[in-house]
Amino acid sequence: MLNQSGAEAPRARRVTGNEFFTMARIVMKFGGTSVADIARIRNVARHVKREVDAGHQVAVVVSAMAGKTNELVGWTREASPMHDAREYDAVVASGEQVTSGLLAIVLQQMGVHARSWQGWQIPIRTDGAHGAARITGIDGSFLVKRFGEGQVAVIAGFQGIAPDNRISTLGRGGSDTSAVAIAAAVGADRCDIYTDVDGVYTTDPRIEPKARRLAKISFEEMLEMASLGAKVLQVRSVELAMVHKVRTFVRSSFDEPDAPGMGDLENPPGTLICDEDEIVESQVVTGIAYARDEAQISLRRVADRPGVAAGIFGPLAEANINVDMIVQNISEDGSRTDMTFTVPQGDAAKAVALLESIRPEIGFDAIQHDEGMAKVSVIGIGMRSHAGVAATAFRALSEKGVNIRAITTSEIKISILIDGAYTELAVRTLHSVYGLDKQ
Amino acid sequence: MLNQSGAEAPRARRVTGNEFFTMARIVMKFGGTSVADIARIRNVARHVKREVDAGHQVAVVVSAMAGKTNELVGWTREASPMHDAREYDAVVASGEQVTSGLLAIVLQQMGVHARSWQGWQIPIRTDGAHGAARITGIDGSFLVKRFGEGQVAVIAGFQGIAPDNRISTLGRGGSDTSAVAIAAAVGADRCDIYTDVDGVYTTDPRIEPKARRLAKISFEEMLEMASLGAKVLQVRSVELAMVHKVRTFVRSSFDEPDAPGMGDLENPPGTLICDEDEIVESQVVTGIAYARDEAQISLRRVADRPGVAAGIFGPLAEANINVDMIVQNISEDGSRTDMTFTVPQGDAAKAVALLESIRPEIGFDAIQHDEGMAKVSVIGIGMRSHAGVAATAFRALSEKGVNIRAITTSEIKISILIDGAYTELAVRTLHSVYGLDKQ
Repeated sequence: MLNQSGAEAPRARRVTGNEFFTMARIVMKFGGTSVADIARIRNVARHVKREVDAGHQVAVVVSAMAGKTNELVGWTREASPMHDAREYDAVVASGEQVTSGLLAIVLQQMGVHARSWQGWQIPIRTDGAHGAARITGIDGSFLVKRFGEGQVAVIAGFQGIAPDNRISTLGRGGSDTSAVAIAAAVGADRCDIYTDVDGVYTTDPRIEPKARRLAKISFEEMLEMASLGAKVLQVRSVELAMVHKVRTFVRSSFDEPDAPGMGDLENPPGTLICDEDEIVESQVVTGIAYARDEAQISLRRVADRPGVAAGIFGPLAEANINVDMIVQNISEDGSRTDMTFTVPQGDAAKAVALLESIRPEIGFDAIQHDEGMAKVSVIGIGMRSHAGVAATAFRALSEKGVNIRAITTSEIKISILIDGAYTELAVRTLHSVYGLDKQ
Repeated sequence: MLNQSGAEAPRARRVTGNEFFTMARIVMKFGGTSVADIARIRNVARHVKREVDAGHQVAVVVSAMAGKTNELVGWTREASPMHDAREYDAVVASGEQVTSGLLAIVLQQMGVHARSWQGWQIPIRTDGAHGAARITGIDGSFLVKRFGEGQVAVIAGFQGIAPDNRISTLGRGGSDTSAVAIAAAVGADRCDIYTDVDGVYTTDPRIEPKARRLAKISFEEMLEMASLGAKVLQVRSVELAMVHKVRTFVRSSFDEPDAPGMGDLENPPGTLICDEDEIVESQVVTGIAYARDEAQISLRRVADRPGVAAGIFGPLAEANINVDMIVQNISEDGSRTDMTFTVPQGDAAKAVALLESIRPEIGFDAIQHDEGMAKVSVIGIGMRSHAGVAATAFRALSEKGVNIRAITTSEIKISILIDGAYTELAVRTLHSVYGLDKQ
C-alpha cells in the first residue's frame, strides 16, 4: 500500500487552531477544464505560486487539457473498437504528460522551481489491470526529496506503471485518485481538488437554486454522494481519502488566485471533506443526490427456492451488469416470489436478453422492464441517531403525488426509486423538507 | 556506442544474389505524413504486415502524426519563449508515443503480434543534451528478444532516455536517426525509410522534371546531398548509416502495399543508400543539390595577421551562427585581405551586428552583406578519379550568364554560390551538362 514515508520526514508541521503555523504540505489537483489552454494553465500556476510563496511544500497533479483525452480515446477506437488496453494506456496517458510539462514551463517562467514527473519516474505503481488500474504503492520519499530541494513536483495524473513495466491508466477521472493517493503517500496536510465548481452543494444547484455550499462534509457522506450521483469527485478518490484520512478540499480553479482568503490554511473558499470528528455541528441530513437513467426489471412469480437469487444475479454480474436496488416480495401462496431490481438504462436490453436466455434454469412467469426511472437519495450521518428520517421523506413525496417504486436504505442514506419525470420535484421537495434551503 | 548484440544472435541470414532466402531483419520507419490519420496508419500497417507475412523479423519506428509536433512545440512556446529543454522534451515526445500505440492497435487488429515501446523502456540511451540529444547506446538484445517472440516492436521515434532518467528528444527529424541507430543495434539487413517521396532523385523534380530516381547512392554522396539541401533524409541519420554500414532504403509509404515487387528483398521500388562497393557502375556525377536563402558577408581590408580568422569565426561560432563557404583574397599590398563567407539568411543581421561590435579587435574597413543567395552543388564519387568536372560546371554556368560568387570543393562535391534568382536555371544547366537527364 501507500508508503507514508513522507509522514515521518522532519519538517515543521501545521499547528491547528489558526493561531500560528510555519509550513504545510499541500497536494493540488487541477482538472481538464482548469488546464484547457495555456491561458488557463497560467491561472493554475498563479494558484500554485500563491501556496509556494506562503512557504508551503507543494506537489501538483494535473489532468489532460479538456477534450484531449476524448480525442486520444477516439483515435484508439477508430484504430480498433476492440483495442488492447496496454496500447490504449500508452496512447491516452500522453494527455496528462503534455499538461505536466506545460505547467512546469509556466511555473518556471514565474520563478517557481518546478519539474514535471510521470508515473513511471516516481514511480506510482499500479496493478496490471490496464485501462482501469488500481494504485498499489507510491513511495513518498521520492516526492519528499523534491520538497527538500524546494521543488514543486508537477505530476501527470491518471497514470502509473504496471508490473509489466508499461504505463497504466486508472480509468476516467483517475486524476482525483492520483492526487489523493499522492497526498496519502507524502502525509499531506491537505489535498486540494481544484475543479470547475466551487465546492460540494447540498444538492445540484441547477435543479434547486437554493442549494447551499457545504463548508464541511464527512468522508462517509461524500462517498454516498459520489456513489449516488454527485459528480464532483470520483468515488475511488473518496474511498482512498477515507481510508487514509486525507483531508480533501474541493474548490474552484476559476476563483481569482490572489483574492482575499484564497490562501487561508483552515478556511479557504470551498468544501472540506474530512473525518466526522472534525464536523462539530452535524446536520441530520447533509445532502440530496440523484441519478437518472435507471431501468427497473421485474421477474414475476419466480420459484422461491434456495439459490434462486444467485441464479439470477450471478449471470448478470458475470456480464458486467451493475445491479443496484433489489426488492423481493413474497407472493400470496408463499411458493413464488416477485424479484425487482434496477440496472443502468444502457444495460437494460442486455439484462433482459440474458435473463430470457436462462429462463428455463431460473423459472419465472414473466419479465417486465420500465426505463426512465430515477434514484433520489437522502444522505446524512445524523440519520444514525435520528429516527423518522425515512418516514419524513415518504410523507413529503406522497403529498406531492410522487409514486415510490422501490426503497433501499443504509445507516446514513435512503434511496428512493421514482419515475424520472418527477426527479426535479422530488429533489426540491426533499431539499426543503429537511431544512437544507435555510442557512 | 550501439551494442550490436543483435548481429550475433543465431538466425537464418539473408542469402544475397536473389537465389534463396529464409528470413531478413528489417527496420521500417514511417514519417509524419505517412501516419497523419488512422486511415494512413492502416495503410502503414499493411506495409508492415507484408514484410511479416514474408517471414521477416520487423521493428517499426514512427514519427508523430503530421502537425502534432508543431502543435506541441507551439504550446511550449506559448507557455514560455525561453522554456526548459527537459520540459519541452516531456511535452513533445508524446507525439510519437501516441502514434506507436495506435499503430500497434491497428497491427493487432490485422492479426500481427505487435507491441509499442518508448525510448525509456528499451532503453534508447542518449546524452543529456535535452532537445537535441545524441543517441549514446542501444542494447539490441531487448529487441532481438522481441523478434524471438515473433513480436513486431513499434518504437516511438525521435526520443530516448537521458542520464537524468528523463525523456530526451533528438531534434527535429530525429526519427530517421532513431531508425538507423536501431537498425545498427540489431544488425538489420535493411533500414527502410518510408516517406512521402519514392526515393532519392538526381535533383529536385519540382525544378527539373527530367530528374531520375537513383536505384543506389553511396553513403558519402547521400551525406553530401543531405548536407547540401536535399531534404529526403536527416544528415545525422546518414552519418550514422555510413559509420555502421546500415543499408538504408528510401521508399514511399503511399505506394500500394501489395503491389508487385513491393516485398522484393533486393530491388523494391526506391533508392538504396549503401557502401560504394555495392555500386557497380558509378557515375561521375550522381546528383545536383541546392540550398536557397544564403547570405554572403564580406569584410573589406581586414588586417592580415595570424589569428585574424579565429578572431572573426570564433565569436560567430559561439553565437551559434553556422558559417559555410569561406573565401579569402589577398589584397594588392599583401598587408590586408578581403574575407567573404556565407551564413543562413536568417542569421545575417545577427552576424553583421556581432561583427560590428568586435570591429575594434578585428580591424576592417567595411562590412558588406548580400542576401538572397543560393548554393548549388554537384555531387559524385566519380569526381575523385575524373579531372575537369569543376571546369565543366563553370563553363556551363558562364554560357548561361550565371555569375559565380564563390566556390568550395571537396573530393566528391563542388558547391557554387550564385544569385538566388538563377537557382532553377543553374540546377537545370548542371543536371543537363553531366548527362543526368538521360536514362
